[in-house]
Amino acid sequence: MATLGLIEYKEASSEVRAVYDDIMLTRETDWINNFWKALANDPVTLRRTWESIKEIMRPGALDPLTKELIYVAVSVSNQCAYCIASHTAAARKAGMTDAMFAELMAVVGMANETNRLASGYQVEIDDRFLSR
Amino acid sequence: MATLGLIEYKEASSEVRAVYDDIMLTRETDWINNFWKALANDPVTLRRTWESIKEIMRPGALDPLTKELIYVAVSVSNQCAYCIASHTAAARKAGMTDAMFAELMAVVGMANETNRLASGYQVEIDDRFLSR
Amino acid sequence: MATLGLIEYKEASSEVRAVYDDIMLTRETDWINNFWKALANDPVTLRRTWESIKEIMRPGALDPLTKELIYVAVSVSNQCAYCIASHTAAARKAGMTDAMFAELMAVVGMANETNRLASGYQVEIDDRFLSR
Amino acid sequence: MATLGLIEYKEASSEVRAVYDDIMLTRETDWINNFWKALANDPVTLRRTWESIKEIMRPGALDPLTKELIYVAVSVSNQCAYCIASHTAAARKAGMTDAMFAELMAVVGMANETNRLASGYQVEIDDRFLSR
Amino acid sequence: MATLGLIEYKEASSEVRAVYDDIMLTRETDWINNFWKALANDPVTLRRTWESIKEIMRPGALDPLTKELIYVAVSVSNQCAYCIASHTAAARKAGMTDAMFAELMAVVGMANETNRLASGYQVEIDDRFLSR
Amino acid sequence: MATLGLIEYKEASSEVRAVYDDIMLTRETDWINNFWKALANDPVTLRRTWESIKEIMRPGALDPLTKELIYVAVSVSNQCAYCIASHTAAARKAGMTDAMFAELMAVVGMANETNRLASGYQVEIDDRFLSR
Repeated sequence: MATLGLIEYKEASSEVRAVYDDIMLTRETDWINNFWKALANDPVTLRRTWESIKEIMRPGALDPLTKELIYVAVSVSNQCAYCIASHTAAARKAGMTDAMFAELMAVVGMANETNRLASGYQVEIDDRFLSR
Repeated sequence: MATLGLIEYKEASSEVRAVYDDIMLTRETDWINNFWKALANDPVTLRRTWESIKEIMRPGALDPLTKELIYVAVSVSNQCAYCIASHTAAARKAGMTDAMFAELMAVVGMANETNRLASGYQVEIDDRFLSR
Repeated sequence: MATLGLIEYKEASSEVRAVYDDIMLTRETDWINNFWKALANDPVTLRRTWESIKEIMRPGALDPLTKELIYVAVSVSNQCAYCIASHTAAARKAGMTDAMFAELMAVVGMANETNRLASGYQVEIDDRFLSR
Repeated sequence: MATLGLIEYKEASSEVRAVYDDIMLTRETDWINNFWKALANDPVTLRRTWESIKEIMRPGALDPLTKELIYVAVSVSNQCAYCIASHTAAARKAGMTDAMFAELMAVVGMANETNRLASGYQVEIDDRFLSR
Repeated sequence: MATLGLIEYKEASSEVRAVYDDIMLTRETDWINNFWKALANDPVTLRRTWESIKEIMRPGALDPLTKELIYVAVSVSNQCAYCIASHTAAARKAGMTDAMFAELMAVVGMANETNRLASGYQVEIDDRFLSR
Repeated sequence: MATLGLIEYKEASSEVRAVYDDIMLTRETDWINNFWKALANDPVTLRRTWESIKEIMRPGALDPLTKELIYVAVSVSNQCAYCIASHTAAARKAGMTDAMFAELMAVVGMANETNRLASGYQVEIDDRFLSR
């Protein structure tokens, strides 16, 4: 059903396999989820997207769990069913408990509400928020 | 310019002042930002929104800084200028460094990108993500 | 600042003037707002958009005020500053009171919140909602 | 398939049952839809969300049917499949006819179109819309 | 499952059949997709929507393939599953190759990413972009 | 006003200057727009974003003008004021005429409308669109 189909490891080119191998190695897992198998139809995008995600999601000023929570928050706001499913699983693997998930949803819901109250009431930005 | 105008403390009803006082007390600050002054035109919504935010943003399974980062992530995805300005300030007050902000933006940007790649390629959700 | 500029009545072609005249007649007003002056750079889109709006917004199974409230609700959810400003004014002209506006915002805010709670919790649609 | 599963009445805590009972009493119905059963995993959010919705959706300056129409308009703009299904059913129960639904969709569609024409043409807000 | 059901050709009114006939004639095809069968419950909206699309999608300053690519780009950004499926098919019929589709997705993904980086960093619009 | 300020060429590190130089060389221009000056606060994101855009926007199966039109379409759908301004300018530089812009807006507007009609009417995806 994926637009260009899914490319399995055994039928993949060596270029695609190299990315698949790096995904499994980096994530310490033995399978590839459908997102990458769909992108593999365009090896250039597959490589660039994976390299970007690997660079962005590694531990830095923010830890991996926090980054996954942010990823879920964005996916929920955008109503992306695939991304909600896959990143909720990723967040759990990174340590998200049910209690954390519930609080995450509460914040995401509230932010989506007040985003509209602020723009609906046409609230001017406070001067204090404009200066650095 | 706000649709119903902004209600300042000195002209506010006692009902509204009670909320303003609680906001300043809870946030350990001595001013009220425009969002609340605009909502004060509807004291019922003012009270409910403040009580909800106070309950949601307090420390729990997630710490206040993480919650503010999530709030910024949603506001940026939704393009709410007021909320981006106010919650970026709130996140900084909660401890967000410039390095954390930069990584937050990188994750938010990437999530918005892959949200569209996943739906654009019409990727089916993996069975593993569907079972609990 | 509008991408293609604004076309004023006195400099407009007769084709554009005919639309402007019909807008002022239908709305019982003596001025044209910037949206139409910007669209006037493309007379085909100007005409089609105006004819569509005139057909859609006229009294029918729903009254004009209800239709304007819905227009504001959508514009707020989409964060369109121009449309929030113009349709809030139109809703007021159609009879929206401050109390109605406040309730409208409360519903819009809540709907945006629960939209994300429903998708974030990956709630399955109830069978009862699927059958007609 | 819901992230944290669905909590049925018979397995619910007394805290959750109290909310379920109030939902059924307020709505004059004998069943609970999946949205609440999913939220019940977080009794605090369940209670707050229900109390907020009960307060917001009750008759006021706007009648319940108008509020449900607005709820559908937002859900459709946000592409929330669950919310479209559940609030279309709720709007019908509140009195929405097929003719009203069709006009609602026409307005929602048009608003989403002109929201983009306005921002795409970078139309400046008219001075008249800025002053109160 | 469609809210008002789908209206097949054989059960359609002559008004609806006239639109169906024009769709099949214009598109050089012998079937009607579900979108139109759902809209047919509201013949006024069916007619207006079809006439608008016919006018907008015909060859002009932009060719039909480019227009279909733009349609897919918007549908993907908005997460509209039906529209992604139907307009991806339409774009292919208009000449979109797999390579074009892959580049389209890459641009759509990147635009969604930088849209958030620009607003998240609260970047001021350059003066050069404001003047015509 | 940009969250972390703008970094001008003369105050930039050699790492940032290298990216600025490549932007000016690739785009055959002698200035850097604010988006890059804001991102320069995070040299890693600056470099990755530029390298990605350079790779994605170069001529391929789609020509640069088509890619810029798609970029504008997404930015308009997302209501990103900065991106609408900057990519409208870029599209013009790539050859977009006023007539092309007007048709682009018409398609973007219509797609945003029918995206909501399709989901609002809860239209099932046709079997023909599901099979490859």
